[in-house]
Amino acid sequence: MRKLARLFSTVRDETVRLVQPLSDEDCCVQSMPDASPAKWHLAHTTWFFETFILERFEPDFQPFHPAFRVLFNSYYEGVGEQHPRAQRGLITRPSLAEVQAYRQNVDQRMQHLLAQSSAVDDSAVGELYALVELGLQHEQQHQELLLTDIKHLLSMNPLKPPYLASNAISDASEIGGAAAAVRWQQFDAGVIEIGHAGPGFFFDNETPRHRQFVEPFSMASRLVSNGEYLAFIEDGGYRNPLLWLSAGWDWVTQQKLTQPLYWQKAHAQFDSSWREFTLHGLQPLVLHEAVTHLSYFEAEAYARWAQARLPTEAEWECAAATLGQDYFGVAWQWTSSSYAPYPGYLALPGAVGEYNGKFMVNQYVLRGSSSATPGGHARLTYRNFFPATARWQFSGVRLARSGG
Amino acid sequence: MRKLARLFSTVRDETVRLVQPLSDEDCCVQSMPDASPAKWHLAHTTWFFETFILERFEPDFQPFHPAFRVLFNSYYEGVGEQHPRAQRGLITRPSLAEVQAYRQNVDQRMQHLLAQSSAVDDSAVGELYALVELGLQHEQQHQELLLTDIKHLLSMNPLKPPYLASNAISDASEIGGAAAAVRWQQFDAGVIEIGHAGPGFFFDNETPRHRQFVEPFSMASRLVSNGEYLAFIEDGGYRNPLLWLSAGWDWVTQQKLTQPLYWQKAHAQFDSSWREFTLHGLQPLVLHEAVTHLSYFEAEAYARWAQARLPTEAEWECAAATLGQDYFGVAWQWTSSSYAPYPGYLALPGAVGEYNGKFMVNQYVLRGSSSATPGGHARLTYRNFFPATARWQFSGVRLARSGG
Amino acid sequence: MRKLARLFSTVRDETVRLVQPLSDEDCCVQSMPDASPAKWHLAHTTWFFETFILERFEPDFQPFHPAFRVLFNSYYEGVGEQHPRAQRGLITRPSLAEVQAYRQNVDQRMQHLLAQSSAVDDSAVGELYALVELGLQHEQQHQELLLTDIKHLLSMNPLKPPYLASNAISDASEIGGAAAAVRWQQFDAGVIEIGHAGPGFFFDNETPRHRQFVEPFSMASRLVSNGEYLAFIEDGGYRNPLLWLSAGWDWVTQQKLTQPLYWQKAHAQFDSSWREFTLHGLQPLVLHEAVTHLSYFEAEAYARWAQARLPTEAEWECAAATLGQDYFGVAWQWTSSSYAPYPGYLALPGAVGEYNGKFMVNQYVLRGSSSATPGGHARLTYRNFFPATARWQFSGVRLARSGG
Amino acid sequence: MRKLARLFSTVRDETVRLVQPLSDEDCCVQSMPDASPAKWHLAHTTWFFETFILERFEPDFQPFHPAFRVLFNSYYEGVGEQHPRAQRGLITRPSLAEVQAYRQNVDQRMQHLLAQSSAVDDSAVGELYALVELGLQHEQQHQELLLTDIKHLLSMNPLKPPYLASNAISDASEIGGAAAAVRWQQFDAGVIEIGHAGPGFFFDNETPRHRQFVEPFSMASRLVSNGEYLAFIEDGGYRNPLLWLSAGWDWVTQQKLTQPLYWQKAHAQFDSSWREFTLHGLQPLVLHEAVTHLSYFEAEAYARWAQARLPTEAEWECAAATLGQDYFGVAWQWTSSSYAPYPGYLALPGAVGEYNGKFMVNQYVLRGSSSATPGGHARLTYRNFFPATARWQFSGVRLARSGG
Repeated sequence: MRKLARLFSTVRDETVRLVQPLSDEDCCVQSMPDASPAKWHLAHTTWFFETFILERFEPDFQPFHPAFRVLFNSYYEGVGEQHPRAQRGLITRPSLAEVQAYRQNVDQRMQHLLAQSSAVDDSAVGELYALVELGLQHEQQHQELLLTDIKHLLSMNPLKPPYLASNAISDASEIGGAAAAVRWQQFDAGVIEIGHAGPGFFFDNETPRHRQFVEPFSMASRLVSNGEYLAFIEDGGYRNPLLWLSAGWDWVTQQKLTQPLYWQKAHAQFDSSWREFTLHGLQPLVLHEAVTHLSYFEAEAYARWAQARLPTEAEWECAAATLGQDYFGVAWQWTSSSYAPYPGYLALPGAVGEYNGKFMVNQYVLRGSSSATPGGHARLTYRNFFPATARWQFSGVRLARSGG
Repeated sequence: MRKLARLFSTVRDETVRLVQPLSDEDCCVQSMPDASPAKWHLAHTTWFFETFILERFEPDFQPFHPAFRVLFNSYYEGVGEQHPRAQRGLITRPSLAEVQAYRQNVDQRMQHLLAQSSAVDDSAVGELYALVELGLQHEQQHQELLLTDIKHLLSMNPLKPPYLASNAISDASEIGGAAAAVRWQQFDAGVIEIGHAGPGFFFDNETPRHRQFVEPFSMASRLVSNGEYLAFIEDGGYRNPLLWLSAGWDWVTQQKLTQPLYWQKAHAQFDSSWREFTLHGLQPLVLHEAVTHLSYFEAEAYARWAQARLPTEAEWECAAATLGQDYFGVAWQWTSSSYAPYPGYLALPGAVGEYNGKFMVNQYVLRGSSSATPGGHARLTYRNFFPATARWQFSGVRLARSGG
Repeated sequence: MRKLARLFSTVRDETVRLVQPLSDEDCCVQSMPDASPAKWHLAHTTWFFETFILERFEPDFQPFHPAFRVLFNSYYEGVGEQHPRAQRGLITRPSLAEVQAYRQNVDQRMQHLLAQSSAVDDSAVGELYALVELGLQHEQQHQELLLTDIKHLLSMNPLKPPYLASNAISDASEIGGAAAAVRWQQFDAGVIEIGHAGPGFFFDNETPRHRQFVEPFSMASRLVSNGEYLAFIEDGGYRNPLLWLSAGWDWVTQQKLTQPLYWQKAHAQFDSSWREFTLHGLQPLVLHEAVTHLSYFEAEAYARWAQARLPTEAEWECAAATLGQDYFGVAWQWTSSSYAPYPGYLALPGAVGEYNGKFMVNQYVLRGSSSATPGGHARLTYRNFFPATARWQFSGVRLARSGG
Repeated sequence: MRKLARLFSTVRDETVRLVQPLSDEDCCVQSMPDASPAKWHLAHTTWFFETFILERFEPDFQPFHPAFRVLFNSYYEGVGEQHPRAQRGLITRPSLAEVQAYRQNVDQRMQHLLAQSSAVDDSAVGELYALVELGLQHEQQHQELLLTDIKHLLSMNPLKPPYLASNAISDASEIGGAAAAVRWQQFDAGVIEIGHAGPGFFFDNETPRHRQFVEPFSMASRLVSNGEYLAFIEDGGYRNPLLWLSAGWDWVTQQKLTQPLYWQKAHAQFDSSWREFTLHGLQPLVLHEAVTHLSYFEAEAYARWAQARLPTEAEWECAAATLGQDYFGVAWQWTSSSYAPYPGYLALPGAVGEYNGKFMVNQYVLRGSSSATPGGHARLTYRNFFPATARWQFSGVRLARSGG
C-alpha cells in the first residue's frame, strides 16, 4: 500500500514534468479534434481519480469543482454528459494554474485515502487498489498522448518550435548510413496462446488468454528504416494505386499525401535533403533510424511494395515472446489485426467498462511500444489501437511474411 | 465447354429478366453513391467480359464503344481511369436500349469465342474458362446488388412503388405469431479448417484453406426475428449508448436512427402497427420473419442487448459445415470478423487481382446468403463484406455465445 | 378570354415541344441540386395551375394525384411540405408518360375553366385571369431553366451528347474574327424612373416604379465576346488574386477554375484550340460571339481587368430604355446590383407571394434576356437573379464605366 | 505631427489596455474561423504599421521577425502569402510576451519615424501621415473585433467566465420595464447626398459623396428592444417560415436556432426567465435595452413580423444626419443595403487598396456604432459590413417604413 502511494506520486509527478517545457499557451490549444490540449490531459487524468475513486471511496466526497465532471469526462456515457471533444481547446478557464491546483488537491486526497485504506473494508480495498493501478496506467497512456499531441501542435506552427532544446546531431555520418541488414526469423505452425493471464497489471482487452493457430511465418529482425521508406517514396510509392488498399488510395489522393506526416523536403536550391520535425525541432532525416508517424494505410502499402506484409497480432506476440526487448521502445508496430474482442472477453464492470471495449471497430492494433512510451508501461500482451488514417502517433512497421 | 456456354446464357439472361419490371427511368437513376443504377449493372457486367476476356482472347478485338472502357470500369486501376462512382446516375446516354444492344453484342462474341475455344491453345483455354466462370460469378453478385439498389431507389420515392406486384398477405395470423424458440447448438474447442480448397469455383478471398483454433461456443438455431428486434427497439435500444460501440453510437445519434432502414410506423391515428418497405411495396411487418437491412452497428448492439455476441467467421463456418442449409437463403449474417486476408492469401494475377484484396480494411464479413442471392451462387466458405454502417443489403443477425 | 385560352395552349405546348429531343432517361435525372429534371419542370408547371387555380376556382376540385401536392411543390411554404429539392431526380415514378397525362388532364380542366369563366363572378374572373397569366409566365421561366438544366446534364456525360442535331459551322472564318469594336454610350446624371407601372404583365419584383438618381455613366454597345474573355484568361486572369473579389478568389481557388463552365481545351497534340459545349454538342469556340455561362465573380473580375465595371440595374434599365433591342436576346447580363426589394415593394397576397420576395438576399440581378429565353417573355424592367457562383445560366457581361 | 504622435500612443495603448483582463491562454485561442485570437489582433495591428509604413519609410528597414510578414498578414495578396485564417489559434509561439515586445519595438520605431518626419520630403510626409491615420483607424476597428471575439470565446466555455467583473444589477425594476414607445419620424422624397467628402478621416468605401433619390419613408426613434424581440420569439417567430427570407429559413432550420446568439433560458424549475451572456458574464436579460447579436436574417424576419422593414443605407444616413447622436453608440444597425461600391468608387492605391473593396459581395451594411466601438471612431458616413448570418457582432435593428 505504501508502495502504491509512492508509485502514485512518481507517475503523477512525471506528467507534470512533461509539461514543464511548455508555456500556458502551448498547454491550452488543441491542434485537431483527434488531439487534446496538454492542460486537458492534466485535468482529465485527475478527473479519472476523482470520479472513479474519490467519489466512491472518500467519505463526504465533495467535487473540486462541480462543472469538471462534464468538462473533463472524455467519453464515459455511464458517468454522464461530456464536453464536446472538438471544443477541448476553447477552455481557457480554468487556467493552467487552476488545473495544477486541481491536481494537487486530488493528489492530497488520494494520498490521504491510500493512507487510510486499512480503514476501508477488505473487498473494497482490493477494488480501490485495482482502480488506483488502472488510474496510473491510464495516466501513463496520457503521458504518451500528451507528447504526440504537443508534437502535432508545434508542427503546425510555421516557426517549427522545438519541445526540447535541440539535440544537435554532431556529424554527417550520423545521418546517412544504412540500417543493419534485416534478418528473417522463422516460426513454425502451431497452436499458441496469446493474451494476459496475470499476475501483474493488464487491461481488460488483453484477456482472456486464449489459443490461436498460427500458420508458418517469418518476422523481420528490426523495424523499417527511414532510408528504406525513402526508397519506397522515390520508387513512386505514393503515386501507384496498385500498392494501396482502395480506401487508402482514396485517402492519399484526397489528402494529396506524398510522404510521412513530419517529413519535409528542404526548399533550398542546392539542398534537396529531407528534414523531419521532431520534439527537438526540425532535424535532418536520419536514414538508419526507424520510420515513424506512418498510418496503417502507409504501413500496409509499404509492406506490399517490399513484397512482405504486416504481421497479425498473434504472430507478433508469438515472435516477441521469443525475441524479447527488440520488439519494444522504438515505435509502435502496426499489425494487420482489426481491434476486436478476444474470445470470452468481458469488459470491466461499471463505468470503467467503457475504457476499451466500445472502441472495437474500424481500428487496427499496434503492438510493442515507442520511444515516447513511459518506462514500464508496455508489455508483451499490450494492445494499442488507432484508425487506419492515424499518423500522429509514434507508429512504424515491422514486416512479416507467410511461410517458414 | 458447351456446358459453360449454356451456363453463360442462363446467367446473362437472368440479369435481363431482373430488370423487366423496371422502366427506362428506374434503370437510369442512382439513389446514393453506394448504389448503382440498374443500367450500370447491366453495362458493367458486360464490360467485365469485354475487357477481361474479349480484349485478351478475341482476334482483331474492337471495343463496342471506345468510351465504355472508362465509363463502365468500376474500380480497376490496372485497366485505367474510371468514371466517378457518384456520377453513375448522370449517364442518360447510352440509353437502356443501347446498353441492351451492348449486352447482345458481347454475348454473341462471347458465344462465338467459346465455340471457337478449341482453336485456342491449351493453357489459354484453362485461363479463358476460369475467367468466364469468374465473370459469371461476378454477374451473379451484381444480380443481388441490382435488387438491393433498386429497392433503395424505390424506397426513396414517396409513392413507395413496388418492384413486383404485391404479394398480398391474406390473413392477420401471418403477420403476428412469434418465431420458433431459439436452440443453442454447442461446439467444442479445437483446431478447425476454414476456407476453400476446391474443387469448384471460389473467389481468391476464400483461400487458402487454413487452420484456426476456436474456443468453445454456441450458435443460435435461427436468425433474429423482426419481433425480437422490435422488443429491442421498445426497450429503448436506439436510445441507450451503453449498448453501442462508440462509433456506432455517434452514427446513430448523428443520423437520428430509431429503427431498421425500411421500417416505418403507420401514421394513422388508430393504427400503430409497423410497415416494412419490400420489393412488393409497403407491407405489414411480419414478426416471425428474420429481421433484415441491419447495419453491423445495429446487429452488434442488438447482440449485446440480447446478452450474446456476433459469431466470428471461423465459428460461423464451423457451425454451418455441420448444420448445413439452415445457414443460407434468408439473410446475410454479420460476423464480428473484420474482412482480412487469410494467412498466405494471394490475389489473382493481373487486373482481376483488384477484385477482392484491395477492399480488406474497415469492412466486416457477412456469411451465408439471402433471399436475393441467385440460386447456386453462395457456399460454405463464401465471404461477403460491407462497412459497419451499410444497411441497404439483405443483412441480418445470427447470435453466438462464448462457452460450451 | 378566348385569347387567353389560345395563349394557354401555345405556351403549354411549347414546353412539351422542348422535351421532344429527350429520352425518358434524359428527362428523369438531376445533375446537381441547383438543377431540376425536365420531367420535374413538366410536372411542377402543371402543379402551379392545379394548385393555385384549379384548387381555388374549379367546382368539386379533385387533385389528379394527392401525392403530387407535395412532390411537385417547389418552395411554397404556404401550400405546405415540399419534396426535398436535392431528391427531385430520384422520382422515377410517376413516369414521363404519367406526367404527360397529368399535363393533359390539367390542360383540359384549365380550358374548361376558362371556357366557363363567364359563369364565375366578376372580381374572381379578374383574379383568375391574372393567375393564369402568372402561370404562363412561370411556365416560360421554366422553359429556359429546362434548357439550362438539360445542357448541364448532357455536359456531365463524357459522350457529350447534343440536345439538338449539330448545327455544323461551315467554314473557319465563322470561328475566328473579332467582334465589332465596342462603342461607349454616355448618359448624363439625373433622376430616372425604373420599374414597371403597367399596362401588361409584370412580376411583383419589378414594382413599384420609382425614382433613382444616377450619376453620369457609359455603357458598352455590346456584350463581351469569347475572344475578349480568352485574352483575359491568357493574361492570367484566373491566377491573379488582385482581379477578384475576396470571396470570388476563394471560390476560384477551391474549385480550381481556369475557364468558363462549358469551355474545354482540345487535348489533341497538334490542336490547341478551344471547344465549347453547346446545345448542339461540342463546338469550336466562336470568338466573336458573346461569352456566356459566366458567374458573377467571373464577370466582375473580367470587368476589373478590362478597366471597367458592371452596370447597376438602374443604369442598365436607363440605357436599355434608350437603346432598345440590342439589350436583349443574346445573354443575361450581370449587374452589380444585389437583388433587393424596390422602395414600397409588396409581395403578391397569398401563397404566390412567395414567388419572388423571399429570395431577395445574396443574389445578383441579371438584366436583358438570352438566346434561350422564350420570345415575348422578357421586357425592359425584368429582373432575373442568381447567386454569385451560378454558372449554368446563359449569363454574360455588358461593361459600364463611371463618368460621362 | 506631435498631435499625431500623441494620438498614436493613445490608440495603441488602448489596445493593450483591452487585453489586461485576459490571461495568456485567453489571448491565444480562436473560437471559430470568423474570430481571431486577441494575441493575433495585437500582432496584426502592429504588422500593419510595420508593413505599410516602416517597410516603406524607415531607412535600413529590418523586419522585427522575418516570419511575421506571413504570419500576421490578414488578407493582403499584394503583400504576399498569408497564414491560414482558420489556424490563427494554433500559434502558441510567439508568446503573448513576445508579441507585446513586437508592439513596443514597432511603437518606438514609429515614434522615431514620426519625430524625424520633417526630414522626409514633403509629398511623402502627406502619405506617411495618411497611412498612420489609416493604421490607427484600423487599430480601432480591431479593438471592437477583439471584444466581439473574446466575448464569443468566453461564451463557448461552460463556466461562462466574465471578461470584466460583474456589474451587478441592483434591483428587479432595472430588468423589467418596457422601453420608451417608438415614435416614427418622417422624411420626404428627394435627392439627397450621402458619403464622405472630407475634411477628416474616412475610409475609401465612404466615397465618393454622391446623390441618391429616396422615396418617402419613416424611421423608428430607437432600436428594437429585448422585450420586443422576446415577443417575436413567443409569437413563434423562429418557427414560421413565412416570416423569413428563404435562405434565412434554411439556415435557422439547419442550425436549429430559437433565439439570439447569447440568450439562454434558465433551466431552473421555478425560474423561466431569460439570461444573456455579456462581457460581465451571464446576466438577467434587461427587457428595455436594445436587442443585440442578431444576424441580418433575424433582423429582417423581425422587421417583417413587426410590419416594418430595414432601412436602406441612404435612408439611414439621411435620418442620422438630421437626428444625430441617437443613431450611435448602442448597437450597429443592419440596413437592407448590400455592401457595394458607391458610383465612382476608387480603392486606395497599392496593397492597402485591398482594405475594403474586395469584400463588396454577399455582405450587408450596418450603420451607426455600438457600445463596443472606440470613442470617436464612427461617423455619419461609416459603413460596417458583415454576412447575413453573422451574429457575434454587436448588431441590432432600427426599423423603417415606406411612405411618409
